[in-house]
Amino acid sequence: MTLRQDADRIIKDSIQSVLPDAAVARALKGKNFGPGRLLVVAAGKAAWQMAKAASEVLGDAIDAGVVCTKYQHVKGEISRFCCMEGGHPVPDANSYKATQAALDLTRDLTDQDWVIFLLSGGGSALFEKPLVSEKEMAELTEELLACGADIIEMNTIRKRLSAVKGGRFAEHCQPARIYSIVLSDILGDPLDMIASGPAYPDSSSCQDAMRIADKYQLHLTKACRQLLARETPKSLTNVETVITGSVRELCRAASDSCRELGYRPVILTDQLCCQAREAGSFLSSIARTYQTTEESLAFIAGGETVVRLTGSGKGGRNQEIALAAAAGIAGLKDTAVFSIGSDGTDGPTDAAGGYCDGNSKNDLADRGIDIYETLEDNNAYPALKACGGLIITGPTGTNVNDVALVLIRR
Amino acid sequence: MTLRQDADRIIKDSIQSVLPDAAVARALKGKNFGPGRLLVVAAGKAAWQMAKAASEVLGDAIDAGVVCTKYQHVKGEISRFCCMEGGHPVPDANSYKATQAALDLTRDLTDQDWVIFLLSGGGSALFEKPLVSEKEMAELTEELLACGADIIEMNTIRKRLSAVKGGRFAEHCQPARIYSIVLSDILGDPLDMIASGPAYPDSSSCQDAMRIADKYQLHLTKACRQLLARETPKSLTNVETVITGSVRELCRAASDSCRELGYRPVILTDQLCCQAREAGSFLSSIARTYQTTEESLAFIAGGETVVRLTGSGKGGRNQEIALAAAAGIAGLKDTAVFSIGSDGTDGPTDAAGGYCDGNSKNDLADRGIDIYETLEDNNAYPALKACGGLIITGPTGTNVNDVALVLIRR
Repeated sequence: MTLRQDADRIIKDSIQSVLPDAAVARALKGKNFGPGRLLVVAAGKAAWQMAKAASEVLGDAIDAGVVCTKYQHVKGEISRFCCMEGGHPVPDANSYKATQAALDLTRDLTDQDWVIFLLSGGGSALFEKPLVSEKEMAELTEELLACGADIIEMNTIRKRLSAVKGGRFAEHCQPARIYSIVLSDILGDPLDMIASGPAYPDSSSCQDAMRIADKYQLHLTKACRQLLARETPKSLTNVETVITGSVRELCRAASDSCRELGYRPVILTDQLCCQAREAGSFLSSIARTYQTTEESLAFIAGGETVVRLTGSGKGGRNQEIALAAAAGIAGLKDTAVFSIGSDGTDGPTDAAGGYCDGNSKNDLADRGIDIYETLEDNNAYPALKACGGLIITGPTGTNVNDVALVLIRR
Repeated sequence: MTLRQDADRIIKDSIQSVLPDAAVARALKGKNFGPGRLLVVAAGKAAWQMAKAASEVLGDAIDAGVVCTKYQHVKGEISRFCCMEGGHPVPDANSYKATQAALDLTRDLTDQDWVIFLLSGGGSALFEKPLVSEKEMAELTEELLACGADIIEMNTIRKRLSAVKGGRFAEHCQPARIYSIVLSDILGDPLDMIASGPAYPDSSSCQDAMRIADKYQLHLTKACRQLLARETPKSLTNVETVITGSVRELCRAASDSCRELGYRPVILTDQLCCQAREAGSFLSSIARTYQTTEESLAFIAGGETVVRLTGSGKGGRNQEIALAAAAGIAGLKDTAVFSIGSDGTDGPTDAAGGYCDGNSKNDLADRGIDIYETLEDNNAYPALKACGGLIITGPTGTNVNDVALVLIRR
């Protein structure tokens, strides 16, 4: 196996493990529900796949289910499920209708019943029942944006204007128990932030909400003001939450795959968020430091870096990580740095990411390509294409951020 | 002990271990010389301290020695040593005189004799015997600079115009044996680069030199051209080299100190060279990822980052690392990121570096200081001063780059 083949194998294994299907199946493994009814509510962009996976694992044990997903995201019928589509990122009447169907399904449950709640990215829009008019909500959102409120402040206000957010969906299902399976697309998995946490205790308080309203002198109707004063659930004893298919699991899967291939894996972080090219430099510094190792090593960094735009070329953050690292690992034996987006799409390109090894810098120089200039032009794609460093997976059907690796094979 | 006290202890221990005195003493430990004469040649900015340390360890065993250092760097007499000062960074007649004294001392040795060669940064200028006139050398250097030659190309040419560089000093001492103790100030410790490697086999060839001369169409005198064709030593069987007091040792010492304080140390790299604030972000990502650790952890990254100048404030690269990390570790319990320059001077400030912990961001916000804006203004110094985050050591007497740490105490 070449080093590139090792990389391709690790990429395949990692993405496989965070596909909604695999992630849901893993989360349901060994779980028992009953003795009452078993209902499934799936919300978010991956809702259909997650529901499909749950249906395949649990089969007839499911009494009924509702899928609330985005237009064009329902890929077929699922037995006993009602699959509904709505607007995203801006919710529309169909989003509300789907959510209402889920609320209707989970009304009047007993403590013998279970609700499996399958949540994925996009759930904020796709799972929503506003307590104020659409117009009021839109105006308030605009006002909050205009005055520079941050995402936490926005959510603190908006949660209170919703019948399902900030733990209220879980409250609605009481006394039934909820098994919440969350496909996380936010670094660090802040459960009250993902889709504004319909089944997770809210960490913000009414005081927080009022303080924000005062701070920005928001124009609130009386109804709005009353809603801000209504507390969200602070503890939810009927909910068990499991995060699956997150970048953390992407890193763990990469780590397992590396171990199987004979590398000793070291997970550096699953919350990387610095500039892409600087991350590439940092990773190559690690690669240089460990050249005298006698065992094969793999360093893993998951997260989502940012591209500093200084040019107008074609590329993506993962491609920039690999290309920047190519300068730092030039000449090193059996050493590679590669990085991919788990969704299979890196920037506005058809590549999932980039791969470089100790020879890449020379390969590029032979073609008259200077790494520094290419990065300044944000033009990693054609450079990587020229040296065989593009990683192409096609759309993967999941989106749990990125993972970058250093491989040193001995 | 507070987390800050741990940090201060680690800083003290780390710097202590790379002081020229400690580094030389460590390198001489258990070594035996003889049965012939034992001579010492010390060259570079730390030459006097290194010679002094050698004298203290070996005492009467030393027959004679020469120190070639920079003006104002001789701090007193050393028994049996002739201490001489010269120009740096541009060599002058006194530099050449000192070097000649060293060459005279090490002339006509036998295979029973030993030369201890103590080399530190600045040796390129302070230890030199040019084979062309000063004017010729100056003109050639200027021509090389003007045509954009890189440092490796410059050295490939210049080594051949010197009687001591590129391994020629070691050749001069033959058949005596040389024990070369190198205080490294270049990342990755490239021994043929440090002071142009007077006692290390040269990796460049005459063909390389001629190719460079052709590439830039250098105006060479006939004498010059003949010198370029004279090969430098490619193997030196009479030399044993030990690198001491390098950034690698700085990292190792930090690691040992952390272990003593109960942290499990992980050396990430000793060749960090990315942007300071991005390194801070990367380190804080690691800190966030390991919050659930049950053992105390220390992540160590040595090297020399660069500051991206976007403002006109006061600060330095180590201060930027700490301040950038403060944003990423905000709110974390018993977690700190700090970074120092081993010379005790970070940027044009009286601080060695900066320290931030989980409270720093809030402390700064209370004082109306925004981290992002401060970094954009390259103004870390007053911000760190305001939150008690400056690390002040004073000049340390050594210079082996920087080290940054993440501490997570449990």
